[in-house]
Amino acid sequence: MLGLMQEKPLLISSLIDYAAKHHGDAEIVSNTVEGGTHRYTYRDADRRARRLGSALLRRGVKLGDRIGTLAWNGYRHLEIYYGVAGVGAIVHTINPRLFPEQIAYIVNHAEDSYLFVDLTFVPLIEGLGDHLAGVKGVVFMCDRAHMPAVTLPAGVELLCYEEFIADGDETYVWPEFDERTACGLCYTSGTTGNPKGALYAHRSTMLHAYAANLPDVFGLSSRDCVLPVVPMFHVNAWGTAYLAPMVGAKLVFPGPHLDGESLQRQMEEEGVTVSAGVPTVWLGLLNYLRSSGKRIDSVKRLVIGGSACPRAMTKAYGDEYGAHVQHAWGMTEMSPLGTYNTPKAGMASDLGEEYYDDQLKQGRLIFGLEMKIQDGDGNELPWDGKAFGDLMVSGHWVCSAYYKGEGADAHVDGWFRTGDVATIDSRGFMQITDRTKDVIKSGGEWISSIDLENIAVGHPGVAEAAVISCAHPKWDERPLLVVVRREGTDVSREELLAYFNGKVAKWWIPDDVQFVEDLPHTATGKILKTKLRERFSDHVLPTAGD
Amino acid sequence: MLGLMQEKPLLISSLIDYAAKHHGDAEIVSNTVEGGTHRYTYRDADRRARRLGSALLRRGVKLGDRIGTLAWNGYRHLEIYYGVAGVGAIVHTINPRLFPEQIAYIVNHAEDSYLFVDLTFVPLIEGLGDHLAGVKGVVFMCDRAHMPAVTLPAGVELLCYEEFIADGDETYVWPEFDERTACGLCYTSGTTGNPKGALYAHRSTMLHAYAANLPDVFGLSSRDCVLPVVPMFHVNAWGTAYLAPMVGAKLVFPGPHLDGESLQRQMEEEGVTVSAGVPTVWLGLLNYLRSSGKRIDSVKRLVIGGSACPRAMTKAYGDEYGAHVQHAWGMTEMSPLGTYNTPKAGMASDLGEEYYDDQLKQGRLIFGLEMKIQDGDGNELPWDGKAFGDLMVSGHWVCSAYYKGEGADAHVDGWFRTGDVATIDSRGFMQITDRTKDVIKSGGEWISSIDLENIAVGHPGVAEAAVISCAHPKWDERPLLVVVRREGTDVSREELLAYFNGKVAKWWIPDDVQFVEDLPHTATGKILKTKLRERFSDHVLPTAGD
Repeated sequence: MLGLMQEKPLLISSLIDYAAKHHGDAEIVSNTVEGGTHRYTYRDADRRARRLGSALLRRGVKLGDRIGTLAWNGYRHLEIYYGVAGVGAIVHTINPRLFPEQIAYIVNHAEDSYLFVDLTFVPLIEGLGDHLAGVKGVVFMCDRAHMPAVTLPAGVELLCYEEFIADGDETYVWPEFDERTACGLCYTSGTTGNPKGALYAHRSTMLHAYAANLPDVFGLSSRDCVLPVVPMFHVNAWGTAYLAPMVGAKLVFPGPHLDGESLQRQMEEEGVTVSAGVPTVWLGLLNYLRSSGKRIDSVKRLVIGGSACPRAMTKAYGDEYGAHVQHAWGMTEMSPLGTYNTPKAGMASDLGEEYYDDQLKQGRLIFGLEMKIQDGDGNELPWDGKAFGDLMVSGHWVCSAYYKGEGADAHVDGWFRTGDVATIDSRGFMQITDRTKDVIKSGGEWISSIDLENIAVGHPGVAEAAVISCAHPKWDERPLLVVVRREGTDVSREELLAYFNGKVAKWWIPDDVQFVEDLPHTATGKILKTKLRERFSDHVLPTAGD
Repeated sequence: MLGLMQEKPLLISSLIDYAAKHHGDAEIVSNTVEGGTHRYTYRDADRRARRLGSALLRRGVKLGDRIGTLAWNGYRHLEIYYGVAGVGAIVHTINPRLFPEQIAYIVNHAEDSYLFVDLTFVPLIEGLGDHLAGVKGVVFMCDRAHMPAVTLPAGVELLCYEEFIADGDETYVWPEFDERTACGLCYTSGTTGNPKGALYAHRSTMLHAYAANLPDVFGLSSRDCVLPVVPMFHVNAWGTAYLAPMVGAKLVFPGPHLDGESLQRQMEEEGVTVSAGVPTVWLGLLNYLRSSGKRIDSVKRLVIGGSACPRAMTKAYGDEYGAHVQHAWGMTEMSPLGTYNTPKAGMASDLGEEYYDDQLKQGRLIFGLEMKIQDGDGNELPWDGKAFGDLMVSGHWVCSAYYKGEGADAHVDGWFRTGDVATIDSRGFMQITDRTKDVIKSGGEWISSIDLENIAVGHPGVAEAAVISCAHPKWDERPLLVVVRREGTDVSREELLAYFNGKVAKWWIPDDVQFVEDLPHTATGKILKTKLRERFSDHVLPTAGD
């Protein structure tokens, strides 16, 4: 028997509609690419998103069409999030930090019909040249006065955002359609192969937003002021562009200004209470605060994800600035949030050493997902905080496949292989210990490359370190430590290996050390271990350690 | 184009499953009917709910079967919420405060196959006699030692809860089914006609739970300890039985002990942080606190709904006990939450006169719903805090019809007529001013009977007052004030009418006063204005006021 409840689809347009009706005066403040600060309200954003949506329809954009963006966090990008998804087209956010050939691949693989581009990326667009041939138009996100002189391939229209939306209708009524309709597309840039697209649905995005706004997760209220440093051009700015309108929180967009000085100024001027970003951003802000003596007294919480946040930084923000650093973890394929670190009953909520210790973990599962860890044979591992294995997730906002059916091996029996290796403790707190492809499988047991790297960089003679697996006749794989020496030091192989004594089990200690001038990195700054493994594929380990 | 996201139904079983996995040690503490306190954890509750669900299946209960409950807030009732809904059957909560003939009607209208009953209600069950003939079994919620000696109609099995679930399997795996499947049934007891059933779905209940747990609504975290005084036997205890497991909050159930002394003791002993109930409950607690000198220092928030909370009570809890009273509004047909009163940015969050003023309103709309007010001709009215009209709602957790298709006139063009008359101010805060059937329609303009009653009871000579419409040849309807004099006083018609001068517009002042010995009430304590209107249907108003 079915319930007798109103049947309405979960649609993204309901967010901006609600924000305009119930929080019409709440502000959206943006640092712009053109210079200066732009201010308006949810009421204004809603009207302009409706203009954009209806203008797209007039140009023939249909349900399911992909609309690309190359843009910073700003009010026009927000309008695109809602205007495009609102009419049933797909917001395809493109990471401008990728290599140009990756961007060319992505635009063509997605078959974007229009590209919306911030002025910063004029050179990038020019560099793409004929790779843009399949696009109908490039819309620069500015007014006529700021339009750049760009030559586009034949047949590709050059358009001005403000003129584009002036053609639209601000009283346009958002349509209803199937809640499983795609609303967003974001490509992951793995370290191997071509980027693969995660195709989000209205339903999954809405359920993610509800869950991510629970008090033990982002927990935004209408009294919050949110500054998402995490980009809207990748992983949906961790959902903040949906979470804030859902509760009418004030939104502050940094535009291209992600340096410590700019962030501090916006936080102070706008009264930011919550911000979200990756560790490097918070390191930049911390350095600026310490050198300038400036404060961020309105800030209660800094959400950190993307990679592990060092304890020293959590402590610095807590002790020196009274801000709670909260660790989060997610993936492009997970919309993106998976876990979030807030204390359970009986744990430390107040800033202090216990809180900082607890924040070393990536957090506990958000309601609406399931997770498990398993060994190489697919056996589930216990939640004891010690056993580590492949982290698998499933749930309402987890991808079931990649766009156009690629990368099928990541999706197994209703579970998504995250590619992360993790522990889960008895309270349900998960901690990433490695990437699946980087873990060293020694005689059937796993060794965490990240744990070894963290120890190695603690040695004063080490500037950067990577641990990779190296083939071994008896143990299959053994760890090899690759080190860039700190300038002016001359640490030896023997010193480094001895440095591990007492810090890990004896059988975890690397079999050998190689010194190099520098390590290869991805476009987003991660160490390219694939390249490193290729380079040392012929390396022969000494046999003494057997 | 559809998104490529995992498709999983929104099912209630996921709540208890999550709570057991991620908050397995969090406590559920119950005052029992048998006497004493019962303590266990979400892990235990989950196992016993699985036992119950599988035991029901073994007895032939199928998807869509109705299972009635006559029970207080307690751990076994919680197990029934999850065990019954978990297997796709329908939890039909019955309000034991209804008249026996209403309960008999409801049990038979719902065609309940089993009834789960607390020991308190043995006399009620015995009184129902042959009206229970359609039921397969009555399960008393106790162990064998506490089983009552009851004679049931022939063919109706007498069962013991603990034995019933002992037959089940605690490793039973919750099944998957359509998320629109019905999970709950609750009858509204209007003042006219037979009760009508609201039939909730898994999807609507889950979306309601997500939305009701947003930080600007109930906003529970795993560090909260929740005491729902609002009954699980009506309007789903305002969702608290779903909200708490969703975040792993500790649950404290009062059982049948709703007096001030019992509530204060539980709050203090268990460290309750949030509680929810109707104004009479909070009045009882307040009186007890004041007379005993006891405290409720762990309590941060008292959620009040059901009827309007007097400002004096909001202020008393704030000034004397440091607790935030939060006003909420909802209906059986709305799962039940519609609005909730938390401050927006710029409004007073701290306790004080401004906060108490703001709490006079029922609050602002929860994300996931829509609302509007309209006049008698269906024209939408402005949100200016002055215009008042019929309150209409729609959304994911609003009924589209009543069980078996009754009461269709309440459902119009996708909107549900709440039967309330309300204002909405420019910030979106809604305030109930009357019931649609009680408002007085004088010459096309509306007069709020509640506003007039609130003034009348302020007069020292008035014990109780009701304002009803009375037919009038020129104005169609005019207000008639019906008053029960306070004992020992002898207030006159003229004194009372003069008392309204300067308090309302002149044309709002009642045309006449009638003094009575007592007013008729419903089973739940509301004034039965239908009865009163019948009684005064022949009353002729004086013509002087024309």
